[in-house]
Amino acid sequence: MVSTRQWVLAKKPTHLPIFDGPNATFKLVDKHLPELQDGEVLVKVTHLSNDPAQRGWIAPDIKPERLYIAPVEVNEVMASGGLAEVVESKSKSFKKGDAVTGFVGWNELAVLSDKAVQPAFPILGGKKPQTLHLGAFGLTGLTAYVGLLDVGQVTKDDVIVISGAAGATGSMAVQIAKKILGVKKVVGIAGTDAKCRWVESLGADVCLNYKADSFADDLVAATPDYATAYFDNVGGEILDLMITRLGRGGRIIACGAIADYNSVRSKTSGVKNWFEIIAMRLSIHGFVVLDFLAKAPEATKVLLRALEEGKLIVDGGEQVVEVKFEDVPKTWVTLFEGSNTGKLITKIQ
Amino acid sequence: MVSTRQWVLAKKPTHLPIFDGPNATFKLVDKHLPELQDGEVLVKVTHLSNDPAQRGWIAPDIKPERLYIAPVEVNEVMASGGLAEVVESKSKSFKKGDAVTGFVGWNELAVLSDKAVQPAFPILGGKKPQTLHLGAFGLTGLTAYVGLLDVGQVTKDDVIVISGAAGATGSMAVQIAKKILGVKKVVGIAGTDAKCRWVESLGADVCLNYKADSFADDLVAATPDYATAYFDNVGGEILDLMITRLGRGGRIIACGAIADYNSVRSKTSGVKNWFEIIAMRLSIHGFVVLDFLAKAPEATKVLLRALEEGKLIVDGGEQVVEVKFEDVPKTWVTLFEGSNTGKLITKIQ
Repeated sequence: MVSTRQWVLAKKPTHLPIFDGPNATFKLVDKHLPELQDGEVLVKVTHLSNDPAQRGWIAPDIKPERLYIAPVEVNEVMASGGLAEVVESKSKSFKKGDAVTGFVGWNELAVLSDKAVQPAFPILGGKKPQTLHLGAFGLTGLTAYVGLLDVGQVTKDDVIVISGAAGATGSMAVQIAKKILGVKKVVGIAGTDAKCRWVESLGADVCLNYKADSFADDLVAATPDYATAYFDNVGGEILDLMITRLGRGGRIIACGAIADYNSVRSKTSGVKNWFEIIAMRLSIHGFVVLDFLAKAPEATKVLLRALEEGKLIVDGGEQVVEVKFEDVPKTWVTLFEGSNTGKLITKIQ
Repeated sequence: MVSTRQWVLAKKPTHLPIFDGPNATFKLVDKHLPELQDGEVLVKVTHLSNDPAQRGWIAPDIKPERLYIAPVEVNEVMASGGLAEVVESKSKSFKKGDAVTGFVGWNELAVLSDKAVQPAFPILGGKKPQTLHLGAFGLTGLTAYVGLLDVGQVTKDDVIVISGAAGATGSMAVQIAKKILGVKKVVGIAGTDAKCRWVESLGADVCLNYKADSFADDLVAATPDYATAYFDNVGGEILDLMITRLGRGGRIIACGAIADYNSVRSKTSGVKNWFEIIAMRLSIHGFVVLDFLAKAPEATKVLLRALEEGKLIVDGGEQVVEVKFEDVPKTWVTLFEGSNTGKLITKIQ
């Protein structure tokens, strides 16, 4: 009988997840794996995707029906995307040694249905890292792609502002907007000057540091005729400010709200500029990438072509941190410190 | 030379308008009217429309370009819709004695372009009051009509919640939704039990008193499978709660935010449930009726037919208060006390 270590949820956190004491958020446990059945694979997890959205899946104040996937309950393994290698197969689709990607969870080993994983094909014939399946060529890239094209109906005539522009989704959105859609003006927002310079190197016309004292003025200067669209990865005060910087008929692509994820909801600052949504005839479109999985082949094709043509920059777009399995939760929580640039990936030692 | 009394803005109010002392919001002045030119009419104002939206036009913290009409500046006459009688005409469209409707302002007499007023035709051959031109057959009725049909794309299959349901726009929206569109379920929200019973008499399946301690529970009970659409006239805490009562893909028709109009914006409670806009894929559509004036003939035709067929109830849908011209501002401010039912109209003695 095969067993694995796994990180399970111990207690739903009200603020930032914590690691010590009786209220620790996660717990490391040993678990026996079930016998492998036909159509299943036993995989060894090699890399984990670190996503802000995971914070919502363990929030104490969200009813399950108000979440877009089943929440992680206490004593269940923490949900996570990742890369894995097939160790044993009773599937016709995969053989031992195959690289796969999917929702592998915070496991060392896992038994998964072959329908729950996809092959992690070599990117540019193996010249680019497989970890791109968790970023540019995974749900992150798809989120940026469908957020711009399907949800926001963004075209070259737009003036778009993208927050969290140095993050995984934001850095892809900047590139897709500027280099694939040819959007007239792309304004990034990020949290350090260094991140901003990187976002500009990806193609943003300008990127603004929201921690600068002059940020509100900088935003006005960057959108003298107002913006037509806003791709929002952060929520909170930046969203509230952006409501005042969208022109008549502007659209908000509501993708994420990382500013609020570690707060009790009743304590968040709240959107106060609602009146301008009415007066300026703004429209807001909340979306979840899981509704757009059918668009994945199209997005992959477009993004691969852009990569081949040298338009899509992926080098520097991911930060791979190699840690012991014991440090998986702590690595994930660094997402909320604003320290990472691009996609944060955990490589398990 | 003809002169008139008029109420001008004296100081933009930060909270509820005030009437006494050096910070009084409005000032009564005498003004000479210009000589009547070709294409103009001199009118005597008989009735004024009282609208929450007027509060936005005198707000101190909104930039003019962020408003949908030119704001009223200090020493300018307060803007207002109304009914008037032509006293003298140099217009080919109107003759002395004609009843007209338009933006007449808080004037006793006014000189207006004939393009700025419309004839106030007799309703049901004169069997219904002319004041309906300010409510059901004016911008109020048009707001409800286009908000439901054009902005919200509401159909009979919706479950819609309408706030401010005993107000001018809300009471029309309830009737159009239920009796013209045949919407499956219409839930009203109003501020007293008496108002709620009246809203139910207009056709709402149920109307909830938001001041009741049980309101949040009542709203859950009224929307057991969640709502598909929300016609928002109030903003504030009710809006925030409604975000949690819209099902996946739900739409918010953002029409008004009376809860916030008398607050400094930074002090409003703010929308805190933004995350559910994302997770539940909600869409929000701000709108201003002035964009839909071309739909007025269609709306008037549909609403007149509904009136003839006995579907549209207008009796009891307006509250006409007869006051001296000196009391015009005080009458308008009662709008924000939540005391009126239906359209509040000032008849000038």
